Amino acid sequence: MQRDIQEPWLFTPGPLTTSKTVKHAMLVDYGSRDNKFIQVNASIRRRLVDIINGRDEFVCVPLQGSGTFSVEAMIGTLVPSAGKLLVLVNGAYGKRITKICDYYGRDYVVNETAEDEPVDLDALEQRLSEDVDITHVIVVHCETTSGILNPVAEVATITARHNCKLLVDAMSAFGAIELDAQKIPFSAVVASSNKCLEGVPGMGFCLVRKADLEQCKGNSVSLSLDLYDQWVAMETNSQWRFTPPTHVLLAFNQALDEFDAEGGVQGRGARYQQNCDILMQGMIDMGFQPLLKPELQAPIILTFHTPSDPNFDFQVFYDGLSERGYVIYPGKLTVADSFRVGCIGRLDSEHMHGVLAAIREVLDLNNIKQCAA
Amino acid sequence: MQRDIQEPWLFTPGPLTTSKTVKHAMLVDYGSRDNKFIQVNASIRRRLVDIINGRDEFVCVPLQGSGTFSVEAMIGTLVPSAGKLLVLVNGAYGKRITKICDYYGRDYVVNETAEDEPVDLDALEQRLSEDVDITHVIVVHCETTSGILNPVAEVATITARHNCKLLVDAMSAFGAIELDAQKIPFSAVVASSNKCLEGVPGMGFCLVRKADLEQCKGNSVSLSLDLYDQWVAMETNSQWRFTPPTHVLLAFNQALDEFDAEGGVQGRGARYQQNCDILMQGMIDMGFQPLLKPELQAPIILTFHTPSDPNFDFQVFYDGLSERGYVIYPGKLTVADSFRVGCIGRLDSEHMHGVLAAIREVLDLNNIKQCAA
Repeated sequence: MQRDIQEPWLFTPGPLTTSKTVKHAMLVDYGSRDNKFIQVNASIRRRLVDIINGRDEFVCVPLQGSGTFSVEAMIGTLVPSAGKLLVLVNGAYGKRITKICDYYGRDYVVNETAEDEPVDLDALEQRLSEDVDITHVIVVHCETTSGILNPVAEVATITARHNCKLLVDAMSAFGAIELDAQKIPFSAVVASSNKCLEGVPGMGFCLVRKADLEQCKGNSVSLSLDLYDQWVAMETNSQWRFTPPTHVLLAFNQALDEFDAEGGVQGRGARYQQNCDILMQGMIDMGFQPLLKPELQAPIILTFHTPSDPNFDFQVFYDGLSERGYVIYPGKLTVADSFRVGCIGRLDSEHMHGVLAAIREVLDLNNIKQCAA
Repeated sequence: MQRDIQEPWLFTPGPLTTSKTVKHAMLVDYGSRDNKFIQVNASIRRRLVDIINGRDEFVCVPLQGSGTFSVEAMIGTLVPSAGKLLVLVNGAYGKRITKICDYYGRDYVVNETAEDEPVDLDALEQRLSEDVDITHVIVVHCETTSGILNPVAEVATITARHNCKLLVDAMSAFGAIELDAQKIPFSAVVASSNKCLEGVPGMGFCLVRKADLEQCKGNSVSLSLDLYDQWVAMETNSQWRFTPPTHVLLAFNQALDEFDAEGGVQGRGARYQQNCDILMQGMIDMGFQPLLKPELQAPIILTFHTPSDPNFDFQVFYDGLSERGYVIYPGKLTVADSFRVGCIGRLDSEHMHGVLAAIREVLDLNNIKQCAA
């Protein structure tokens, strides 16, 4: 593997390893109100709508900041102050949504399941039957806390049957796991540039049903995060209201070229699935125990129980891998005593075998024999 | 001038032309929670406080997004719901602040002067004497609408005498025009990566008096834009709460190295002043009329009245310059019929002579003789 020794491979859920060509797209300064940049922006917006097969029914509203800014903007713009949100929680990102609702003073209720269990469809059905004040449901597609895949299609069907609108936080799944607006009834989905689409961080975007967004004037309490205002302005003159991260968008445009060249969601998802399979099998072979049942595992990030071996110290393990050029996710987010290794970004089977070999080395060096929990 | 034909020179108030080395700093992917990145982040925060001579009294809270996100975050975090803000307006950015207050439902009043007049110190004195409910005053250091420099030191003195706190939007002035916290009493100042500090766009920052920020828990209605929460989290583990634009920060760190190498505010400001002088003289020599009186002109962006010559068409003028590799600010923000040319970014006297020659060419090509208004 040819590489710059300065540059680690990132086995994290984003920021992640991007291609050299994506990074090189940032070597130019564009004026944000110049026609060249406006064309790049238009191309990005059009292609993002295409990824969900949104046709003329959906519009793309990009937004500066991290993915969380876009999640907050989606909630703040689409859920009116008189609305009520049901939040399906099975990890840190679902919990963060409740924190956003607390800030906004939005009325909400929570259906929570354990971090290693998908959201509960029966409980959803029951809650929507009992509480007719609920107007919106929000679900995290792949909860990065554990790497669990939530059953968005089934959630959407139930939500639609109760005449509620579905919001999807697809941050770490978008582009690798299909979400087809012609098959799954949802109102809006949010994601960012620096996950499975393999751009660099600095912006998110919301794909929202135009008919829904048109109703949202005046909902947002934040000017910067008002997706309605951002959309109207962008439709008017094709420009961002406030300075966009131009270099991040140039990288994102290149990343979308490479996404298309790989065969879109199918191609990207297939590579990640292969990465996931190699990594999972290699870890299991060494004795590590995955947190999730195989059928719940999304090909995004893998969580393993911390080994019971008394010689295992996470910081030593992390640093040993880092010295070898492999950066895994530092620290833990889950309730369970565990650690996480991502398998997304510009990485393939060779990198998966590489990180497995590095893990083997670090285990041997520290005399760690018992990798089971 | 050696240059990439693909890359225009930006005579805009940002995004602006950055050095090759600043852009090349983005050619690496860093994990946002990895130690290498944490060190870069700490270095940036420390150096930004040093620029205002903030010593231990000020802290730096960086924030994802455009500069406006940071302006909104400063107001939303520092002005409590029971507070009352006096907004000094003489251009579009002052007006935008009132729009933010409208969104937030914050109590505010406005002192407005014409776009070619600085904020009115007597009116400020009078307003603060009459309205004792006012808790905060906010002023735009250089109002990019016209390029006018506002008298921040005098505003600060009056504000302090009335026991109010001063917030400064120094977006387009920070790093080129001195703002010394040991000489000027202010509570907080906000700016961004992509103006006079010559980084790329994607983040802003607020330098805030620690004793003031400590009082601000629970003020913000936005999670993403809560500077108190962002600060507490960053002090706890040196990490950003939500994914930072890592590449933008790597570029910013390099930009700060180059800022230091140029001699900080003094060196940077001197180059911009020279740029401004050359550009102004050259334009006046061709017959253009500046909007501002010389003593009000900040060395950031220059506004000229639209020529009266019937052959002058702004779009043709803009496109002609753009074809020659010079991108000026498209469209107008001011009330006056005018256009604007920036003089900041990685540009020097050679570029100023270059754009003047290009303007001469475009004028001749279009048979424009009367450049006065």
